[in-house]
Order: sequence, then C-alpha cells, then structure tokens
Amino acid sequence: MQDGPLQHLIKMLAGLPGLGNRSARRIALNMLNNREQTMLPLAELLKRTAEEIITCAICANLDMVDPCSICQNIKRTKSQICVVAQVSDLWAIERTGAYKGQYHVLGGLLSALDGIGPDQLNAASLFGRAQAPEITEVILALSATVDGQSTAHYIADHIGREDLEVTHLAHGVPVGGELDYLDDGTITTALRSRKAG
Amino acid sequence: MQDGPLQHLIKMLAGLPGLGNRSARRIALNMLNNREQTMLPLAELLKRTAEEIITCAICANLDMVDPCSICQNIKRTKSQICVVAQVSDLWAIERTGAYKGQYHVLGGLLSALDGIGPDQLNAASLFGRAQAPEITEVILALSATVDGQSTAHYIADHIGREDLEVTHLAHGVPVGGELDYLDDGTITTALRSRKAG
Repeated sequence: MQDGPLQHLIKMLAGLPGLGNRSARRIALNMLNNREQTMLPLAELLKRTAEEIITCAICANLDMVDPCSICQNIKRTKSQICVVAQVSDLWAIERTGAYKGQYHVLGGLLSALDGIGPDQLNAASLFGRAQAPEITEVILALSATVDGQSTAHYIADHIGREDLEVTHLAHGVPVGGELDYLDDGTITTALRSRKAG
Repeated sequence: MQDGPLQHLIKMLAGLPGLGNRSARRIALNMLNNREQTMLPLAELLKRTAEEIITCAICANLDMVDPCSICQNIKRTKSQICVVAQVSDLWAIERTGAYKGQYHVLGGLLSALDGIGPDQLNAASLFGRAQAPEITEVILALSATVDGQSTAHYIADHIGREDLEVTHLAHGVPVGGELDYLDDGTITTALRSRKAG
C-alpha cells in the first residue's frame, strides 16, 4: 500500500485548502465505505464541474453561461457595480438578497506579502466597465483587512471618473454581535460612526 | 447558478466528514482555479481508487491485492494479531514500525448510542482466525474510550481460547506530553502503573 491510488488520493486531498493529512485520511476512508453513493458520484461531479463551469467575461463570476446569469438578468440595475475579491463573497452578498446590481470579481486582493500586484487582479476590465455612462456607483465590498483596504484605495485611485460615487461597506458592530467579544478597532469605528435614533 | 454542477459539488463536499458549507465552498472555488492540476486529476483518482482498492478477505485491510500485502508478507510473524477499529489505526501503527505481526480491522466499535452491535463488526472472522494454533497473542489496540473498552471486553470474552494471551495497549503519559495538560484519569493510571528505573 505504499504507492497505490489510495495514498495518492490522500496526498491530493491533504493539499486542498483547510485539509491536512489526518482529515484527508478520514475523508478517503469514509468515501471508500460509500463508493457508489459518494466516491464515484463525486468523481463524476468534479469532472462535470471542471468542464461546464465557465468564467463570465464581463464580471468574472462563475456560471454555466457567459455572460453569467447575473450580468444577463435584465431585472437587475445596470447603474451599480459591486466589487468583490472572490466568487464566494459574491455568493455571500447574493444570499442576503439585499443587492440587485452588477458585480465585478477581482480574483484576489493586492498583497505585498504574497506578491500579488494590480496585474494579477482582474482590475483593468473594471476600470473599463466603470467608464460606461450608465454606471453611477461602484461599491467596494472588500474585507476590512490591510490587503482589502489597500485594494480598495488602489481601485478608488484608478477608477478615473470624477462623477462616479465610490462607496465602501459600513464598519460597525456585527448584527447579533456581543460587544464584549469585539476588537477595539471595531468598537472605536462603531462609536465614531454612531447614529441618532 | 441555483442548481448547476457547482452547487451540487459544494453540497456533496459539505457532506464529507469534517467539512461544512464554508470549507466546501472554499475547496470548490480553489479547485476551479486549478482545474488541470487538481480538479480533473482528483476526479480520475477518485474513480481509480474506488475501482482498484479492495478489502482484504482475511484482515479487512484496504489494499490493491487480496490477501493484502501485510497478510501476504512472509517476513511478518503469524503468531500475533493486532485488533484495530479502523484502517487508519492500522496505518498509525504501521507508521511506528514497532509491530511486525498480523492485523484485524473491526470496521468500527460497539456503540449503544450509534446502535452498533457485534453483528455490525467484522468480529466473527476474528474469532475464527484466533482458533488457529499458531496464534499465541491477540493485541487489542482499541481507543481508551467507553466504546473502545466495551469492544475490547466483548472480544476478550468471546475469543474462546484459554491458552491465548489477550493484551491491551498500555495507558500512561503520552511521550512528549505535559502533565499539566493531561486529564486526571490518565495521570491516575500512569501513577498506578508506575515503573522502577
């Protein structure tokens, strides 16, 4: 059993984000006990997903059609572009149902540590899209981290249209969050941005 | 993107042990960025593993040959059988290199809570194997949990040979373990089993 497919499978699973050797072994053994229900359907599904899911040429969302179903949706407003780092952020916002505009997926954040510069991001096409006169607002829905904020600054600096409203997500106490567990930075920001009523 | 293969894939990944929705989304998106290097090879490997890995008819180990390479290995002693709950326990013992006998994989532990009785375990064939006169020792390498210990009792009670030595793994302080972080039960056992020298 030194170099069989099972050891290769465990090695490959252990390389996925969030998994290590122990969890990879556990998953592999669990799947071997459910070959017909889990292992073979999963293999088929991975192949199908790799073949059928494409990247939207406009916003870089993942979908089975290009342009993606969000870009194609005529019921959504064309005047707003919400900029996110990853498709998972787009999904998070879509789950809320609170936003009905367009998206733009950067595919990452600027990061000096990881050596990710503007050229590695899907940013140039955003600057292109933002020139269209129907766009009135660009919402930067980026993480409140150093990388997220430097990316937001970079985009705001390079968007190149004075009449465009560039907004950020509000900072503050998470809904349902207990003050006692919050960091000082969040409490300070929430205090400074306090509202009447 | 409601019901495409990507959503199905995420749902299926989220059902694997140790994974939830968030980690499944992260893994799926990561794989989509590495289709040729990760996603398609993983699909192929899952299929190959499901087809090629078989359960040893003697000890229930997983291997590409039956009997497995451990049961076939003429350099290993035939007089000892080490009983483990899962193949992952067998692997853990093999990694130490400290054991050169045979194995027997039960496929689980007796559990009143989970409704797992003796019939659900691969125990009957162990009792058969233990009747062979060349077997002199059965080592119960089962977890030091309630389920592990009741399984050990059950096996010791039903092994049906008075002249057979039935042993357990020693309890005590883990090598490299700090006393301060150990539970009372382990410290009590280690104290009672203290050794001279």
